[in-house]
Amino acid sequence: MTYEDVTGAAGRIAGHVLRTPVLEISPGLFLKLEQLQHSGSFKARGAFNRILSAGRLPDSGVIAASGGNHGLAVAYAARALGVRAEIFVPEVTSPVKVAGLRALGAEIRQTGAIYAQAAQAAAERAASTGALQVHAYDQPEVIAGQGTTGLEIVAQTGGVDTVLVAVGGGGFIAGITVGTGALDAATSPAAPASEPGAGGRPVPRPVPRPVPRIVAVEPERIPTLHAALRAGGPVPVEVSGVAADALGATRLGETAYDICSRAGVRSLLVTDDAIVAARRALWQRHRVVAEHAGATAYAALLSGAYAPEPGERVVVVVCGSNTDPATLVTD
Amino acid sequence: MTYEDVTGAAGRIAGHVLRTPVLEISPGLFLKLEQLQHSGSFKARGAFNRILSAGRLPDSGVIAASGGNHGLAVAYAARALGVRAEIFVPEVTSPVKVAGLRALGAEIRQTGAIYAQAAQAAAERAASTGALQVHAYDQPEVIAGQGTTGLEIVAQTGGVDTVLVAVGGGGFIAGITVGTGALDAATSPAAPASEPGAGGRPVPRPVPRPVPRIVAVEPERIPTLHAALRAGGPVPVEVSGVAADALGATRLGETAYDICSRAGVRSLLVTDDAIVAARRALWQRHRVVAEHAGATAYAALLSGAYAPEPGERVVVVVCGSNTDPATLVTD
Ligand SMILES: Cc1ncc(COP(=O)(O)O)c(C=O)c1O
Ligand SMILES: Cc1ncc(COP(=O)(O)O)c(C=O)c1O
Repeated sequence: MTYEDVTGAAGRIAGHVLRTPVLEISPGLFLKLEQLQHSGSFKARGAFNRILSAGRLPDSGVIAASGGNHGLAVAYAARALGVRAEIFVPEVTSPVKVAGLRALGAEIRQTGAIYAQAAQAAAERAASTGALQVHAYDQPEVIAGQGTTGLEIVAQTGGVDTVLVAVGGGGFIAGITVGTGALDAATSPAAPASEPGAGGRPVPRPVPRPVPRIVAVEPERIPTLHAALRAGGPVPVEVSGVAADALGATRLGETAYDICSRAGVRSLLVTDDAIVAARRALWQRHRVVAEHAGATAYAALLSGAYAPEPGERVVVVVCGSNTDPATLVTD
Repeated sequence: MTYEDVTGAAGRIAGHVLRTPVLEISPGLFLKLEQLQHSGSFKARGAFNRILSAGRLPDSGVIAASGGNHGLAVAYAARALGVRAEIFVPEVTSPVKVAGLRALGAEIRQTGAIYAQAAQAAAERAASTGALQVHAYDQPEVIAGQGTTGLEIVAQTGGVDTVLVAVGGGGFIAGITVGTGALDAATSPAAPASEPGAGGRPVPRPVPRPVPRIVAVEPERIPTLHAALRAGGPVPVEVSGVAADALGATRLGETAYDICSRAGVRSLLVTDDAIVAARRALWQRHRVVAEHAGATAYAALLSGAYAPEPGERVVVVVCGSNTDPATLVTD
């Protein structure tokens, strides 16, 4: 997984996804408004990149398991590209979400009590139909697609010191770590500040943009990355709390672990109360509608779990808005 | 009212207001997300510019009359600048807006059935207290402040063909007409494409950005600009409908009339049904929360009242979000 995979993805999905704006809410503090993305979350980036990377698709189209944002994104991308989509959702999935998927023209299979069973059923079905599987977070094309968010962050802000990102299975943060250059900066020997030119005179290199450090923010009730960094690899965690419908992977993806651990990504935990307060503040102070997962990164800032240094330039990624707006001031 | 008044305002209010982002929702079609502005509408721009232009303020502070958004903006600016604010609001004002005013620490006087009566009461009160009046739309500093939106539109899009803007008293559209260069383009003789340089050789001038045409969008139940352009000057109109709490000026301002008529601004009318549908679509398709007035410009596009030419570059200004999000899918 390299920076070039992410720039390649950006070229592939351009015109299919939105370049979501950043909003500077105070000097040096930016919100990346990725909740404005098609299908209501960044997941559209990875879905398009996976599908568009596949070349000719089988007649059986694409297949995914997810009752949530990933399913919506795959259904959205499939409709836009004119291919069939079969989405496996667990029986617990709310009728509202099923209706949303159906409205996008996806074929829905409600199978199994929980996500893991739906995912198992999807894998079996794919083996028999030959449909292209689009994983929610643990495929290189998916991670590269999510990473295009990182390219935009750097370009739109002119460079920042820190990026705060929510984590579930880790595809989003892994992509952003590669796409902002944070992986290369952590793993390549530093380039010399000047190089010998013709006749031995040093030629100054262009001043590089600062490479941000990537900081993960996780609900303390779903600490997939936190637990993985402690254990030295992905381990299963208990899943509960307000953001479980979007951040509720039971363990981090292997590729995400590899990228995050090599890049030295830190993970901060926030309480459900902090997430609820952050979601409310995003609406009341900034007129930004986010679901709980989408407000999780901002919760680190609002609660003080992350306290920027004076002058530090910070991007908070707001990443999902698939929520009932009537609950913005009540939940 | 000149372009320099608007650039002067931009310098004065920088750091107090947000540079709101634009979102390109399809190639060449931009939403200017001014509903993300402090206080929930563009009105903060004019309020800050008027107050900051005044020099030393009286102890009685500032005073304004407003059906809502202007009052919120003046209260917000006064609090930010540490001065007293007294806001006169008509009884038609929505509870959300009154609650917002109170939360900002303003002194509220609910007086009169409609805006014109509250404005009268505010003017009388200002005469006795000496407070600085901040008019909702008919003061040069207010118009210049709103016009900074136009500067941003040009800079952020690299130039567009058309800007669609909602109209009440006309301060916003007048400011945008000046700030985008549309007034100068309509009233100055065209600059030559090249000028004689040293030795008589023609020096090519830099290719100018296209100057947009400004198109007004008004609810058919509050046609202030439409009626003024027909009558050859501002005339009173009946005020009703879904956007009346924000667009409900009973007549266009004199300065707005002067600017819009000289610049050849056209006015399109849209139905209340079109406004309601536009507000819903902004949320459902684009995750943008707008009040009815804030969705009025988009209504022209969605209803087909404004149909862009192929390749035409269009900005739709989304201008207010002071609304109860629970009503987004019901009203
Ligand atoms: C809104 C939102 N934020 C964050 C995430 C986490 O993404 P990832 O699973 O790639 O870590 C998800 C995953 O569904 C999501 O829907
Ligand atoms: C959201 C919104 N849009 C548009 C307008 C119209 O602005 P103007 O009165 O300057 O025409 C207003 C005025 O209050 C408003 O609040």
